[in-house]
Amino acid sequence: MIEIRFADFLSSNSTLEPTLMEALLNRCKNVHIKKGDFWLRAGEACQQTLFVENGLLRYYSIDDKGKEHLLQFAPEGWFVSDRASIFFNEPSAYFIQALEDTEAIILDESFMLDLAKKDVSFMEFNNKLLHNHIRQLQNRINQLLSASAEERYLHFTRIYPDILLRVPQLMVASYLGITPESLSRVRKELAQRNHKS
Amino acid sequence: MIEIRFADFLSSNSTLEPTLMEALLNRCKNVHIKKGDFWLRAGEACQQTLFVENGLLRYYSIDDKGKEHLLQFAPEGWFVSDRASIFFNEPSAYFIQALEDTEAIILDESFMLDLAKKDVSFMEFNNKLLHNHIRQLQNRINQLLSASAEERYLHFTRIYPDILLRVPQLMVASYLGITPESLSRVRKELAQRNHKS
Repeated sequence: MIEIRFADFLSSNSTLEPTLMEALLNRCKNVHIKKGDFWLRAGEACQQTLFVENGLLRYYSIDDKGKEHLLQFAPEGWFVSDRASIFFNEPSAYFIQALEDTEAIILDESFMLDLAKKDVSFMEFNNKLLHNHIRQLQNRINQLLSASAEERYLHFTRIYPDILLRVPQLMVASYLGITPESLSRVRKELAQRNHKS
Repeated sequence: MIEIRFADFLSSNSTLEPTLMEALLNRCKNVHIKKGDFWLRAGEACQQTLFVENGLLRYYSIDDKGKEHLLQFAPEGWFVSDRASIFFNEPSAYFIQALEDTEAIILDESFMLDLAKKDVSFMEFNNKLLHNHIRQLQNRINQLLSASAEERYLHFTRIYPDILLRVPQLMVASYLGITPESLSRVRKELAQRNHKS
């Protein structure tokens, strides 16, 4: 678990002027979310986006039968929020909960929008975040429609290299949209194959 | 099939000044895509977003085994594009094909970005489109993870009221991520239930 500072993220992923970056960083608040605590519950309007510097959050829904469905893990360097709930100011259908003690940055969306109105480089940065989010969601849909359990698992290990060691298998299976039994089978088959080769 | 003019869409869904709307509409080109023809093929960089005024497009991928996976239908009033491919200028993994003779508006993304830089109401409109897209993708992931075949089907009939009459069952099953046999079973069960009640 390597801490990823939001300031470093901004330096590597935007072309913001130092003064603008400073203004944004000064406006962002830090939050500590204790393991098990909720940042968002279904029914509430999501107010802000989080950037995880250290720790791990999960973003999930609960269906009518009480079953949980994990849409996203947010470890170090990931954003998490219900952007639609924030933007349209409507109740969220999702929960955000800490799976580990977590240090995160709270992005103030209205301040971000104001900055985007004033500064083109910031608008471009914001646009990049939104398009990156769209890309990630689209890939996920394509995976859920087309990939086998093994392919989903291998993809998962690429985008979340260390999550397998940090969360229960049940949550990984939930994220992959497969049964825990399928996940065990896939892992066993891969281990056997790797052992032979 | 009711034609939905892009000009009317803009009037109802944005707060753009008439002169700005005029400038955008003058810049947009029309395109006629013949049934069966492709607008985008996997491997190409997607250049533009389409708004369908009349007709029907599908957005899909083909997996290693040659199987098609339908991510989105775009009937009248829908946008379709690989936004990530446009924004990051990278090859798309998707195909866009006309399922009917289609009249669409081509949105010039660089012009849209220029407009967004110059005009706040346009930036807000663009932001709204992006967030709406995120909301739709997120709902789709949640559906694929959590909903039964029947729930998926009922949701489908709500968001695409007339598509069932316009495309082969196989494509609907592909969109829903279920087998054609499951789709037949669901439709039969619902018909029986409705007949009884």
